[in-house]
Amino acid sequence: MTDTVVKDKDALSRLQELVGEDLALTNRVIVERMHSPVALIPQLAAHIVAAGGKRIRPLLTLAAARLCGYRGPRHVALAACVEFIHTATLLHDDVVDESALRRGQASANALWGNKPSVLVGDFLFARAFQLMTEDGSLEVLRILSNASATISEGEVLQLVTQNDLSTTDAQYLEVIEGKTAALFAAATRIGAVVAGRPAREAEALDAYGRNLGIAFQLVDDALDYAAEQGALGKTVGDDFREGKITLPVLVAFHAGDADEQRFWRRALEGREQDDSDLAQAQALIARHDGIGETIRRARHYGEAALEALDGFEDNAFRRALAEVVEFCVSRGS
Amino acid sequence: MTDTVVKDKDALSRLQELVGEDLALTNRVIVERMHSPVALIPQLAAHIVAAGGKRIRPLLTLAAARLCGYRGPRHVALAACVEFIHTATLLHDDVVDESALRRGQASANALWGNKPSVLVGDFLFARAFQLMTEDGSLEVLRILSNASATISEGEVLQLVTQNDLSTTDAQYLEVIEGKTAALFAAATRIGAVVAGRPAREAEALDAYGRNLGIAFQLVDDALDYAAEQGALGKTVGDDFREGKITLPVLVAFHAGDADEQRFWRRALEGREQDDSDLAQAQALIARHDGIGETIRRARHYGEAALEALDGFEDNAFRRALAEVVEFCVSRGS
Repeated sequence: MTDTVVKDKDALSRLQELVGEDLALTNRVIVERMHSPVALIPQLAAHIVAAGGKRIRPLLTLAAARLCGYRGPRHVALAACVEFIHTATLLHDDVVDESALRRGQASANALWGNKPSVLVGDFLFARAFQLMTEDGSLEVLRILSNASATISEGEVLQLVTQNDLSTTDAQYLEVIEGKTAALFAAATRIGAVVAGRPAREAEALDAYGRNLGIAFQLVDDALDYAAEQGALGKTVGDDFREGKITLPVLVAFHAGDADEQRFWRRALEGREQDDSDLAQAQALIARHDGIGETIRRARHYGEAALEALDGFEDNAFRRALAEVVEFCVSRGS
Repeated sequence: MTDTVVKDKDALSRLQELVGEDLALTNRVIVERMHSPVALIPQLAAHIVAAGGKRIRPLLTLAAARLCGYRGPRHVALAACVEFIHTATLLHDDVVDESALRRGQASANALWGNKPSVLVGDFLFARAFQLMTEDGSLEVLRILSNASATISEGEVLQLVTQNDLSTTDAQYLEVIEGKTAALFAAATRIGAVVAGRPAREAEALDAYGRNLGIAFQLVDDALDYAAEQGALGKTVGDDFREGKITLPVLVAFHAGDADEQRFWRRALEGREQDDSDLAQAQALIARHDGIGETIRRARHYGEAALEALDGFEDNAFRRALAEVVEFCVSRGS
């Protein structure tokens, strides 16, 4: 779910240009509809919604609708819904993770405290459902309410598996499918729905988004143990400090000897970390190629995302969506 | 928004009996649909949703639908939606207020911490929208998504006016209309919608619920300064300790002399409270009849709620809804 500032913006920039007009309209809807007579709401929402996000998820909705030949205006407001839901989860996430930074800037909870972050998250979530209701498609409402429930299930499962090294690879995948991939899948699926395309295409776009989302989160989790801080715009080692059990850790833990496993247990289960522990964790992950293995898995899901595009006409939108996969995966190498 | 255990349960018990079968079905939907493969979700949700609530809001939906002559099954799931939205706001409320008690028991955030309370609240909110989508009425979705947005606006406004004695009576009313009355109004309005009744009846039931909700919250705010602790099932003085600016305080503050105003400023704006301050606040409110004035206002809104029922046929449901008004208002005397 974490958004990271990335080095190579090319593929994403090309997609942003390709749907530039739609994206500008989406941004306008976002700004207009986060308005409230209670001034703190747009203030806090603007801090996170209008500042610096890459808008990957709404971009996916816009491009998927165009890929399906849609020419109307509905995808614009629905792309804003997707971004509102994402922003609501970011606000609540930062409260849950007690994060001080978000996209390299002070997080909303650090600036205003937890309370308004919880409540403004609720507001944006409700606003998303108001927008969907105005759109009037029960199918879109079904897709995005299902995704919203799945996101919270993924987040709760992440909380439950935190600090627990008996977490399996399968449970880890369930967490990231919930917290990240479900909204990617919904974002692209609704593109087919507004275009009135058959279920087969909706399923294909769902598969594209879901596999892309898993790849995206795998890379994100790899980058959290990357050597360098600056390029990311987020603090390296957040997951480690929070005791999140991610794939790089699972790889290193399972391949590690008794001493190494003792280190992981103390640092992640015993929650006793000192200043040198992150470097030690990075060294152990490097020894067992935990980042390499995580990126290889991301590539595998990226390939599945590309395959899901096979049935679609080869046009600029399909090429852009394919490039986004490469963009997301190559952040890690 | 706070629910309080009350002395005289007669009117509410009669309503519970009148729609007993529907209420049993609603409770079954609530238990079934708070299920999730992530076990912590039903555990935490059951603590708050299945334990001890009076179910006023779903009861209102059930009774309003019956008052409108509805004979189908849809109001049952919609009553569960209303309770899920209410429960989600309670969970987030307790995080925001840092409450240790809820309905006389340990609150979910006190037992499990803030994090799962935020996330399970999100889950229940999403689940409510899944249920509405299954129901399929865009009008119901519109009403309940509007109410949800208004609730968070009321909650944020409450946060903004906290510890601020320049809060006006009008702002205070805006807070309670948002945080409490909006969901009461939506709960009763959707009764007319499922019954397919004309807009005039939907408006009347909206007015009934809205005025009842304001009366309910006024009484709740009066009871927070009541002399006795036991009967309430919540801690007397919560609002005072949290610096919430409620009507009993505004009455006493505006009627108070310079010394009294200095006391209020220190205790509520300076946030310096000692053990004797609650007793002093209660004494000052008693001196200026702050509770009496608050209850008189509640009676005024209660009368408006009763008037809104005028256009409906005189039957058992109308009589039960009228008694609920008296029940809510008389809690305070």
